[in-house]
Amino acid sequence: MSFDEIIDRRGTHCAKWDMMEKLYGVPTDDGLAMWVADMDFKPPQCVIDALQARVDHGMFGYFGDDSKYRAAIQWWMKERHDWQIDPAWIFTTHGLVNGTAMCIDAFTKPGDGVVLFTPVYHAFARVIEAADRRVVECPLAVNDGRHEMDFDAWDAQMDGSETLLVLCSPHNPGGRVWTRTELEGVAEFAKRHDLILVSDEIHHDLVMPGHTHIPMAKIDGIADRLVMMSATTKTFSIAGAHLGNVIIADETLRKTFEKRMNALGLSPNAFGLFMATAAYSPEGAAWVDDLMAYLAENARIFDAGVNAIPGLKSMPLEATYLSWVDFSGTGMSREEFTRRVQDDAHIAVNYGPTFGTGGESYLRFNIATQRSRVEEAVTRLKAAFADLQ
Amino acid sequence: MSFDEIIDRRGTHCAKWDMMEKLYGVPTDDGLAMWVADMDFKPPQCVIDALQARVDHGMFGYFGDDSKYRAAIQWWMKERHDWQIDPAWIFTTHGLVNGTAMCIDAFTKPGDGVVLFTPVYHAFARVIEAADRRVVECPLAVNDGRHEMDFDAWDAQMDGSETLLVLCSPHNPGGRVWTRTELEGVAEFAKRHDLILVSDEIHHDLVMPGHTHIPMAKIDGIADRLVMMSATTKTFSIAGAHLGNVIIADETLRKTFEKRMNALGLSPNAFGLFMATAAYSPEGAAWVDDLMAYLAENARIFDAGVNAIPGLKSMPLEATYLSWVDFSGTGMSREEFTRRVQDDAHIAVNYGPTFGTGGESYLRFNIATQRSRVEEAVTRLKAAFADLQ
Ligand SMILES: Cc1ncc(COP(=O)(O)O)c(C=O)c1O
Ligand SMILES: Cc1ncc(COP(=O)(O)O)c(C=O)c1O
Repeated sequence: MSFDEIIDRRGTHCAKWDMMEKLYGVPTDDGLAMWVADMDFKPPQCVIDALQARVDHGMFGYFGDDSKYRAAIQWWMKERHDWQIDPAWIFTTHGLVNGTAMCIDAFTKPGDGVVLFTPVYHAFARVIEAADRRVVECPLAVNDGRHEMDFDAWDAQMDGSETLLVLCSPHNPGGRVWTRTELEGVAEFAKRHDLILVSDEIHHDLVMPGHTHIPMAKIDGIADRLVMMSATTKTFSIAGAHLGNVIIADETLRKTFEKRMNALGLSPNAFGLFMATAAYSPEGAAWVDDLMAYLAENARIFDAGVNAIPGLKSMPLEATYLSWVDFSGTGMSREEFTRRVQDDAHIAVNYGPTFGTGGESYLRFNIATQRSRVEEAVTRLKAAFADLQ
Repeated sequence: MSFDEIIDRRGTHCAKWDMMEKLYGVPTDDGLAMWVADMDFKPPQCVIDALQARVDHGMFGYFGDDSKYRAAIQWWMKERHDWQIDPAWIFTTHGLVNGTAMCIDAFTKPGDGVVLFTPVYHAFARVIEAADRRVVECPLAVNDGRHEMDFDAWDAQMDGSETLLVLCSPHNPGGRVWTRTELEGVAEFAKRHDLILVSDEIHHDLVMPGHTHIPMAKIDGIADRLVMMSATTKTFSIAGAHLGNVIIADETLRKTFEKRMNALGLSPNAFGLFMATAAYSPEGAAWVDDLMAYLAENARIFDAGVNAIPGLKSMPLEATYLSWVDFSGTGMSREEFTRRVQDDAHIAVNYGPTFGTGGESYLRFNIATQRSRVEEAVTRLKAAFADLQ
């Protein structure tokens, strides 16, 4: 299998391609879908084979004995992230939007403040608000064109009503891989303000060559307030399986979370379990290495193209395939640069403000697609902003 | 495909066959798995084909546009149950244990009483208790060897702390298809005690020839307190897909439920959506008709065999494949008759008391398996209770 293989996903109930016309007005026939964090690549062959084996068997009943599944997760965390976990720490949620929501449900009360470092993955704010908690936005600084923590400013903002912090590590959008110093700062911040720290590390495998992701669990002194989250779905292009790992070392937090899992009657679907077990394997690991080499070159091409357009500036991706492009240098209104991207270039992207404060002048481009499509996107953007060049 | 085809499910992460040794001490090599409500049949070919089509496409991303899926549910309810629904009333939960749990979460408070007509599906009590609500058991009467409602006794039991009733219709275990008069009685009971009525109709398609299931939604005057639940998973042998229909006509109840769905970040897995859409079709319907003819003959053989053993008595199945066998006539202790079934006959079954009050002298046998296995079970039971004959 080649990452270059063009796959037509239209007419397949694919959210990314089939909803872009309805959501963004970008025509299905010649539009480029570069919004939702979903890759246009097939998963590793071992994952497809695992599903094919189920189809061949023909039985799809209740799944029993998840010890291999848990062992596969344990192996992956040790092998790929040098992080030793106990299989008993793992909960399988219905994806990580659900995982985040379960943390908010389990560890906070209505009215509590939930801290986000914005701009950040939009569903966090959505579930916080849907649960009648308050979003407390702590805006990231932008220094030298990349996101940085701003603890002094954030300390001044806290009023004691905050009880939980959702960290996105690596960060979506913009792709920062937080350094050890930054992560230590987050841990101190959480302790200082007595916050449960939910570390959403769903992008932990999608790290560009030259960068190293540090699991928050490897930072000293935070274990007793830490919930770790990851998933096979982003890493291996199987978002439809809706499975997430919520890993909790602390027994008190674990018991609280478990109680909510039981009360809500949540247990994972069998397809996801089979696919995840196959994915967290040496073959899966080799595929991820190839993927990241491919994505790194996509990022290079995309950045070179975009940054050659006067007034456009993309944040250098240290991780993720979600390029965060600042249009403020164009001097255009948000309506105007968005109109050009959507209506002129026919590219469907995520709007910056949906990620919260700090996103006003940005659009998010998903570059996890075939190289030729990335090149086409660059060509279209150049044309749409030709008057600036 | 023939329902007679023996499928060896051992070593496939199948809960029913792979967990029976651990849970019941019934040996894997020659045990018969007749416990959890999971059929040993492949789903209809159209369902397998739908999944195969996904494997062939090779993409497993976020699912978009569920209008066909909703239309298929709408079609099924009208076609098979003469019940007209609006697609906008449908929520897709993560199965019906989750569906029940979401109702409890959305519509009751900790400490509230939740009414069950026992013996009944054991997970109801489990999620009620896990959510710190109280199980209020209303024991079904047994008249002429079948379950009947006992409203007078139940009225006397209510103390005003009860806020929700979970009805199982058709009933598991024992397989009653409630009559219109009985359902009207339930509606009146719910109104009299101001209870939200959650009608779990997951077995609604599994109705024996000669019986007709009436959806609770067709009973007058109950719509404003009614939540309807059903699923493709039991009907079509795809429990691993973990998908449930929660259908709410009343706008106030619907908004309350929707708020919890959003707050918990729940949206269905793609595999289940594809399979359910394929299942709710004319081909799926024809398969269910064939299935029920097969299960009816299984029930006839099982009942004839079991009832020929002095002291054993099975409840006549009007629906479901879950035979409810009373051992009280043997005069044996529960330990003794259970020992004979498990340790002598090597049959794994569900224990009566796990279904609540009224289950003390019963075991539940799942007869949704190949005919030859049902016959073998009868032979083994005859041998295990040979001294009574
Ligand atoms: C940081 C982050 N968390 C969670 C998710 C979504 O997780 P899931 O599909 O498992 O609900 C995304 C998807 O983009 C994400 O970027
Ligand atoms: C009445 C009833 N409701 C719900 C379920 C389980 O539903 P699910 O697998 O969708 O959680 C069962 C399974 O036996 C059942 O009998």
